[in-house]
Parts: sequence; C-alpha cells; structure tokens
Amino acid sequence: MGFTIAEKIISAHLAKGSLKRGEPINVKIDQTLTHDVNGVMAYLEFEAMGIERVQTELSVSYIDHNLIQADFRNPDDHRYLLDVAAKHGIVVSRQGNGICHQVHLERFDIPGKTLLGSDSHTPAAGGIGMLGLGAGGLDVALAMAGEPFPLKMPQIVKVNLTGHLPPLVSAKNIVLELLRRVSVKGGVNKIFEYAGPGIKTLNVAERSIITNMGTETGATSSIFPSDEITQQWMRAQGREDQWIPLEADADAVYDAVIDINLAEIEPLIALPHQPDKVVPLREVEGLPVDQVVIGSCANSSLPDIARVADMLKGKAVHKNVDAGLYIGSRQVYLESVERGIFADILRAGVRVFESGCGACNGSGFAPPTNGVSLRTTTRNFLGRCGHATGNVYLVSPEVAVAAAMAGVITDPRELGITPGEFKMPDQFLIEDNMFIYPPANGADISIRRGPNISALPELAAAPDIISGKTLIKLGEDITTDHITPAGANFLPLRNNTPEISKYTFHFVDTSFAERAKAEGGGIIVAGVNYGQGSSREQAALAPRYLGVSAIIAKSFARIHLANLVNFGILPLVFENESDYSSIEQGDQLKLEFKPLFESQATAVVNETKQLEFAVKTPLTHEELEIVKSGGRLNWIKSGG
Amino acid sequence: MGFTIAEKIISAHLAKGSLKRGEPINVKIDQTLTHDVNGVMAYLEFEAMGIERVQTELSVSYIDHNLIQADFRNPDDHRYLLDVAAKHGIVVSRQGNGICHQVHLERFDIPGKTLLGSDSHTPAAGGIGMLGLGAGGLDVALAMAGEPFPLKMPQIVKVNLTGHLPPLVSAKNIVLELLRRVSVKGGVNKIFEYAGPGIKTLNVAERSIITNMGTETGATSSIFPSDEITQQWMRAQGREDQWIPLEADADAVYDAVIDINLAEIEPLIALPHQPDKVVPLREVEGLPVDQVVIGSCANSSLPDIARVADMLKGKAVHKNVDAGLYIGSRQVYLESVERGIFADILRAGVRVFESGCGACNGSGFAPPTNGVSLRTTTRNFLGRCGHATGNVYLVSPEVAVAAAMAGVITDPRELGITPGEFKMPDQFLIEDNMFIYPPANGADISIRRGPNISALPELAAAPDIISGKTLIKLGEDITTDHITPAGANFLPLRNNTPEISKYTFHFVDTSFAERAKAEGGGIIVAGVNYGQGSSREQAALAPRYLGVSAIIAKSFARIHLANLVNFGILPLVFENESDYSSIEQGDQLKLEFKPLFESQATAVVNETKQLEFAVKTPLTHEELEIVKSGGRLNWIKSGG
Repeated sequence: MGFTIAEKIISAHLAKGSLKRGEPINVKIDQTLTHDVNGVMAYLEFEAMGIERVQTELSVSYIDHNLIQADFRNPDDHRYLLDVAAKHGIVVSRQGNGICHQVHLERFDIPGKTLLGSDSHTPAAGGIGMLGLGAGGLDVALAMAGEPFPLKMPQIVKVNLTGHLPPLVSAKNIVLELLRRVSVKGGVNKIFEYAGPGIKTLNVAERSIITNMGTETGATSSIFPSDEITQQWMRAQGREDQWIPLEADADAVYDAVIDINLAEIEPLIALPHQPDKVVPLREVEGLPVDQVVIGSCANSSLPDIARVADMLKGKAVHKNVDAGLYIGSRQVYLESVERGIFADILRAGVRVFESGCGACNGSGFAPPTNGVSLRTTTRNFLGRCGHATGNVYLVSPEVAVAAAMAGVITDPRELGITPGEFKMPDQFLIEDNMFIYPPANGADISIRRGPNISALPELAAAPDIISGKTLIKLGEDITTDHITPAGANFLPLRNNTPEISKYTFHFVDTSFAERAKAEGGGIIVAGVNYGQGSSREQAALAPRYLGVSAIIAKSFARIHLANLVNFGILPLVFENESDYSSIEQGDQLKLEFKPLFESQATAVVNETKQLEFAVKTPLTHEELEIVKSGGRLNWIKSGG
Repeated sequence: MGFTIAEKIISAHLAKGSLKRGEPINVKIDQTLTHDVNGVMAYLEFEAMGIERVQTELSVSYIDHNLIQADFRNPDDHRYLLDVAAKHGIVVSRQGNGICHQVHLERFDIPGKTLLGSDSHTPAAGGIGMLGLGAGGLDVALAMAGEPFPLKMPQIVKVNLTGHLPPLVSAKNIVLELLRRVSVKGGVNKIFEYAGPGIKTLNVAERSIITNMGTETGATSSIFPSDEITQQWMRAQGREDQWIPLEADADAVYDAVIDINLAEIEPLIALPHQPDKVVPLREVEGLPVDQVVIGSCANSSLPDIARVADMLKGKAVHKNVDAGLYIGSRQVYLESVERGIFADILRAGVRVFESGCGACNGSGFAPPTNGVSLRTTTRNFLGRCGHATGNVYLVSPEVAVAAAMAGVITDPRELGITPGEFKMPDQFLIEDNMFIYPPANGADISIRRGPNISALPELAAAPDIISGKTLIKLGEDITTDHITPAGANFLPLRNNTPEISKYTFHFVDTSFAERAKAEGGGIIVAGVNYGQGSSREQAALAPRYLGVSAIIAKSFARIHLANLVNFGILPLVFENESDYSSIEQGDQLKLEFKPLFESQATAVVNETKQLEFAVKTPLTHEELEIVKSGGRLNWIKSGG
C-alpha cells in the first residue's frame, strides 16, 4: 500500500507512534518559526528551559505582526526578540522584511521537511510541499530545544482538483469553496492533501494561499506535491539544490476524497464573522463598501500584487473607499517596483502600508464604526479588525480591487477587464539584508527586557477535586479572538499576563475578567470547536491566570487544546451533548479528576441545579498528568 | 521707505490696523488648511457657526497626522472629515496622499497670498513666498467663515544668508543654527525674513524646511522671496501661472538682522527634549543609536529622499538600528520610484511607512525604553515620541543616514561619500487623484459622526472674581506636548474632550486631572514661553474643561495665547517676574477681573501665603471680553 505525501513526511520524521489515525505520535521538527506577537512568550519559555542554542536545522524569528510601536512596549518586544535570537542561534527577519509565511516560502521552506510555527497559518508551507504545523509558543520552544512535536495522527483527505479557474477567479476562491463545503470545524484532525490535474494550473504562491487558509477549517495541515512548478520557484529563489520531488504514491489510500472542479468556481465571499459563512458574491453585489484591505499572509505575493496593479492601472480608487495594501515581503516589494507595477498602484490612490500583517490582526487600519470592510485576509472573527462593529468580508484580490474601484461589491468579471498574463520571474530579486544572522557563539549577549515583559506566572498544580462557578456559557465556534482579543489596543499587552488577562472575552462580555477574579476562578462552558483560530497561548494562559480550572465544551480546536494542556486547564467534553443545555452561567459545578486518569467519564455535579452529567477528556494519560501538575513547564521541571 | 516681503503681503491683506509693531491687526486669509488631528475640532466649530460654504479662495482638509486606525475612533474621524468637507466646499487630501505642508507646497501654495493652518508648521509655505500662519482650529474655522485673522503686528527680522553650505551639510542645519542662536522663544511675535546671496543656493524644498521649522523659535512666521527658483518649482508643478515675483524693497527697514554664513555651518544636533538644545554633532559622536526616523513635514521632499538614497545605495542599515522612512507625499513617492532611488532605499533595509506625519507626533514607530532616536523631524519635546523615556535628537537627513549605517552618531562627512548631484525635475509627476473635490452644492450631504466625537462642551462665562488653588507650578518652555500629549495612545482622544482632559499634563504629573477635578478647577502657574509648540486647541480646552480659570506665566507662546482666549482661560503675566518664586502648588489665589478691563495691573492675593503680587494681561480689551464671556464661540453667539 502506497503513501500519501503527508504520510511520507510524517514517516520520515516519526519519533514515536505509527500512522494509525487518531493515535498520539511525535514528529521530529526540522525548522521553527515564530512571530513577534506570540514569539516573546515562546522565547521566555525557551529561556526557562535553560538550553544554550536551538537544536533545529533552522529557527527564524519574524517581526511582522505588530509594527505600530505606539509606545515603548512594542519596540521593547522587538528588542527582546533581537537579543534572544542572537544569544540562542536564531535568525531574525526584521521589521518590514515581510510576513512570516511569505518570507519563509521565499527563502526557507523545503519540500519534504517539517516546520513548526507559533502561528496557526504555518501550513502555508504546504504550498511548497513542506509539512507546516501551527502550535502554541511552548510547543515551538520545545521543538527549538530538540523535542519532537506531539500530535494525533490526522486523517488524510485528498482534495482532487480538476479543470482550471475561469478568468478573474483566483486561488482564494478555491479555499473559500472548501470552507463553504466543510465549515470551520470540518478539518479538525485532518490534513488536506491536494492532487489531481488542477494542481498544475496553480503556481507555488497560489498553492500557498490554499494551504495557508486551510487552517480556517481547523485542519492540522494542508499540503501540495512538490513538482516541476515547485522546482522552478526554488530555482528562481536560488535554492534549487534544496528541491526534491514529492508526490503521493499511485496506490496511496486516503481517508476521504473531496472533488473540486476549478472551472465551476465562481467568485465567493465569506460574510461576517466566520470564514465559513461563504456565499456566492452575487448574493451581496451592490453593497456599499467603506474599506478594502489587500494583503495578509494569504494574498500578498507577486502574482497578487501584479493582478491588483493590472486591474488598477490607469484607474482610481472610489472616493467612498479607503483602500490599503500590505505587500507580503521586501522581495515582492522590490520586484513590484522594478516591474513598474508598484507605480500603477500608487497612481491609483491606494494607501501602501509597511510589509507586515497589519489590518489582518487589527494592528491598525480598522474600518469605521459599522463599516463594511472587504479583505483578502484569512479571518473575519468578531472584533479582530480592532472593534466589534466592523463588518469584515473575506474575498479574493480581484473582488477587493473591483470594490475599491466601484465603491460597492462588484463581480470583477463585470468590469470588462481582460486580465494581463502573469509570469513568475526566472530569478527573484534576492536581497537578504533584512535578516540578522546570529553569531556562532551568543554566550556573552545580554538580553534587554522592557518593563512590559512580565515573568511567566507560576502555576499551581490542579487539585484532585475541581469545583467552581460557571463563569460564562458560550455558543459554538468560539475563536481565540473572542477569548484574547487581537487589535492594536491589545496586542502590546500579550507579553504582560496580568494586563492581557483583564481583556479576556473582551468582545463577548467585558465583565468576565472581574467576575472571574471575584469568584477566585471557575469553569467555562462552551459549544463545538472551542478555541478555533490562532495559536496564541494567551487564550489559555490568561483564563488560567484568572483562575479558570476547566473548560467543558462539545469539542475543541486542535492547537488550542494543546495550549490548554500546556497551561494546566482541564479540557472536558460532554458525554452527552444535550447536557450542554442544562447549565447556566453562575451554576456551581464540581468534578473529580481521578476517573479521567482511569480513562473513564467523570461526573460533573451541578450543585445549583442539583443535576449531574458525565464528561470525558480528549487528553492522553500523559497530557492529563501535565494538566494535573499545573502545565507543561511544571511537568518538565518535575522531570516529566 | 520700502517694504519687507512680509509687510507687502500683510499690507495687501490688512483688514484692520497698521504695520506698527505690536499693534493688533486683522489679516485677510486667502487659504486655509487643517489636518485630521486638530481638524475635527475645527470643523465642529465651523459647523457651530452655521455657515453653508467656506468663504476662502481655497480650504484643504488633510488627513495625514494619525493614520494608524487602531479601532473605530480614528477612521470615524476620517469619515467625519470627508463628509463635512463635501458639505461645506472643502478639498480633502486623503489618507496616504502625504503631509499637509509638503502637499500644499506642491499643489496649492501661492507667493504673496496668506494661508492660515490649524498646524503650527504652516509657515512651511514661506518657502514659496506665501505668508503661512499657524492658529488654533477655531481661528481657522473663523477664517473659513470669511473673518480676517487677528494677530499682533510682528517685528520683521532679516536673516541674511551668505556663502553656500559645505557638502553633506544641508538646510536642516541652517534652521538648527538659528535655533541655537535665538532659542525656542527668540522668535515670539517676529517674522524671520530670509535674504542675501545665500538664498540662491537653496531650492524651494530646502527653503520650506527652514520656514517650517522656524516655528520652533516661536516665530509668527518665516518667509523667503519668490524668485526664479520659485518660478521654476511652480512651472514643474504645472502652476507657473500662479507665480509672482516677490522680494523686499531695497530700502526695506527691518527690526533686526541676523547674519548667517552658510559656509561656516557644520552638522548640528538638537539634544533631548527641546529643539534649541543645539550643539555641534561632534560633541555627541559615537553615541549608540537605536532608531533613525527620516521624514516629517521638514525633511521628506524629493531632494531629501534623493540624498538618502544616494547615501544608502549599495549599503545596508546597521543591525542595531531600526531605521524608518516617511516619504512626504504621493508625488515624491512616485518620482522616487520612477527615478529608481526608492529601490535603493528598499534594498538597504529601511522600513517604509505610509506617507504621513507618523513618528514625528508619536503616531507609531516609538523607540524602545530609554532608546536613542535620531530624527529629521521638527520637535523633540518630552513624551512626543510616544513615551517619556525616549531620547529624541533632531538632525539632518545626512546625519540620520550616517547613523543608520554606522550604528552610532557619525559625521556624514567622515563616511568618504561624495554626494551625487541632485536635479529638480522639470516636470513633477502630477497625480491629483488622492484629492477629493467637493460638489458644487453640499446641502444634501449628511454628516456621519462616530461615537467618540463628542459635542463641543458648553463653557460658562468667567466670574468677576477668579479664585482657586494653584493646581500645578511649572517651569520654563512648557510645550503643548506637556499639556496635552501627542502619541498614538492619546491622538484618538483629541475629539473627545472628557476623555482627552484626563491626560492633561500626563508626562509631567499624572495626578493633575484628578486633582483639578477634586478641587473643582483652579489656576496654573508657569515660567516663560508657556504653551510653545503645537496649535492644538485641546491644550486650552482640556484644562478649561477641568476647571482651569487662569494661567499666570512669565510669558506665553503666540498660538497658545490665542487658544486660551478662544476657550475662556484668562492668561496673566507677572508684573514682577520674581513673584513667580513666591507661589507653591496648592496655594489659594484670588484676583479681580475688573482692573484688567481698565488696562491696569490687578492684585493676586495668595491667601495661603498671605502675600499679594501684581499681574497684567497680554490681551486686548476685546480679547478680555471674549475670555469673560467664556470663550469665542459664546462671544460670537452673544453678538460679539
């Protein structure tokens, strides 16, 4: 029996376990990446491990997420990242060099290797045939320390692409179509593996848009083969020596197959506030638009910028629309300038921001109150744009530009534009001087820590009996943006646990933090897919800091589940989902830890309602031990 | 007896008074400009006047100061500005089109005309031979309503330039030399008028750097002749028809003369935290630098960008330096891209921000804690960079770039660079599509106001007897940044008086606002040049909102003095400056309004110390009436 691409890479990196679906496995990690907003915490954790130098083949620290620097906090974080990288052998990609996934695709991704990133969109590397996995910072720190990464062996789903996309319907619509079909939880514990003749119509940048945003389905990863198109990309990057061919065996066996005929795809749009609220664009045509955002890790590469310029050339942005662009990397920037297409964009009146994540995570360029914002970004979670009244719609660059010119949602095919041909360069303009390489020996480097960088909080071991009030009862698909807000007002607080914890559930219930504190902690109750979205650890650490001891949900998102373990919050799922409706905010709950260790359900006593219901845990025995000891750092210290 | 340039322009625009120095005069205003941060308040005030359409030849609303959009507040301000402009006949320069003074110089400044701007650097227009005057928003609103602008006829000081600048010593050093000689108060109630053979060595952009930053001396304005160099600039802008020659008569009489031999100027630097703390660069050579900021209204035009690119071509930014660039306008941006010099800057690893004011007013790109930041900006007031531990030094672009490459403060002449020749374009790349022109009739336009835009507070008339505690006793040269902080955390609060007032004197004494509130208001005591710096009205309105009724100082800066009148705070100066030392914070003071109306000194009773001292007011009888009625809007409403 043959192997799929993912099976081949996992087999070659398997440190523990087998390919049996659902089994705990450990995967050796070749490369890591972090970014500034989640990275400071990751490196504090790495420092806590007392290891001198990273043990990976390559570890890169990107500074791309929060580049505003409203006061000392943000630049202090940058300075800490530079110091810690130099000391421990990590490459830094400086502020302005570009978005981690785009830059890594250009300079570092290698087919067949593994990449662990403290960013949920790390599967962007799948565009080149690398296995990219998102994880919390502590897991990335452990990988830098040389530990293999633990996960459940995912199911492998073949996404069979046929046909080719119609003109002005680009790759973003393929992944929106996938989201439309499988939802934001349809990918949990799955890898989407792309195959079929349709893949030959997609260049590496386009493939990466799809694997990147596959994250929104909850997938563990997404991956394309490494073929002659991949080879050409790597040759143009001066890295052909790192190329290997990689494809699924002809007799590979998949757990499921999804067929997508590219020729049948029409322009799609995800409505606020979930990336799977996808409808055909025509259903919302004519809606007035206040803002257009072009960029993000999913749509800021050269083909995207070229298309935007091609459509805008000689035209102008509509007076009612505030249109802004984030070019994905310094390399794309240089190529755009040299090709003359950057000038076309400038002339049309588009605002040009520094290369980085920007508006995608609410790091500036928020829309006005109740504003309609069309974005080529990856996510449109509530509040993520900087405030809860912003209405973010996710679209392709073509749809974004059409709206920027027309002032209302417009099908780009109705503009009468014949799109120009795009040609990838034979040789990219490679300029690596915004990377800082570490010295061979960093022992003498002292690390500067700004006053906003707080020490990692000490976490107590969990008691044998967990009890507390139901602090909040939440619905389905609660995102990490609901739990720990993104946005320029909150990002600088990420590395200050006492401060960021005050804003837990800020856009859901501003009184949560105070209530949790007043009650001395408690329990959270939620629906399916709790913690979808980002890899940010603060979404686990901040509730934990407020005393949250357990979360009872219908199901959990993969990365967040791991983060709960790492910070000692007990995740529980209903044995019978209908019990969810029996609980109300304020109910006093109580349960025993012990039966869980015996792989049994445990009874939750609702003392307020005088009811009882059963829950189990999705954790392994070892993970339960970690939770019991108060999180992974405690567990490691105690010799775990 | 002949006229100076300023006298010629003022004569031609004189609505009341004579050229007698120190006399109150009214000057007809041809054009106005506002920017977003001070503009919202100005247009709220304009709306309060009930006038349908602006009465000026041209009024432009620039959106350039705060472009971060951290949440809804900032974009709501932008939207309000767009709506109000369309309704009342005002041209908008959109977000990203550039910095007001640079863009106005390119597209709108006209020699011999008058420009009133709600920004203290409006004298930048003097580079083209236009009389630019900074004022509070209410004065600009009145000018838009067709009212002439009241000021005291300034003294005219001839600045006689001879020789030419040595290589790599640019125009910024001329104005730093002026600041070194005359200090931040040496220009109060003066116009600096440039003359001498040295002026022929300076292009319009260089002249504008000097007139712009002349503001830091406290000057009412600064101005250059309009000559063939001016004509060539306007021809290249497609505006030669608006050019007129303008120079001082040969027998013009000046109130004073300052001689500057350009050949003798060496690279200079202003140390933290005042622009007149100017020393030769060599005194601080070798100091490690954390950050370099290139840009601001004073140094972001084409010659600046060309020089920066020329020095950086083929080089790279030092790994210890975070270097960022703000290009002054879309026009400069386009020209830089077309000339290939933008690519040189990109390749060197400089961060490129959106065209706007940015770091200069702390709207992002703050340095780290205790960081050393070298900037080509205009001001280095305490806290202005976003926090009080940032150490900002003011330098020329050449000095900034030298530090960016070397990592320490370095004389650019020691780099062994032979600077390339710069040639102004014969024809600029004119692209006006980031201006929005108002419709002929805006009556039907409805104006959207975000929830953070508060109504103008109602102000009560002043009582006959003013009494209160000394809320704070301040030293010399208190800036508007001390009074009402700039910086990304505070700028979005400017149009919400209750909110911004909480941060009054934030970087001086964080308990001021609470104390003022607890005391139900009171009196401020200060040294010389109180209120230097910005034209922001909030520095008057916020203290007034907190109940401040009078300010007793040794002297006042011009624009702030007018703002105090406009918002009904009584400015008083010591009859005998030595009485300043008799007062302490907390002292209870009391004085009668009446003698001031009789142009007499009035006695201040210090009830705590049981002392008495005399103060007078720098105000005219009419201005006193305005203060007594509770500010200018009250006074207008009451038929004043």
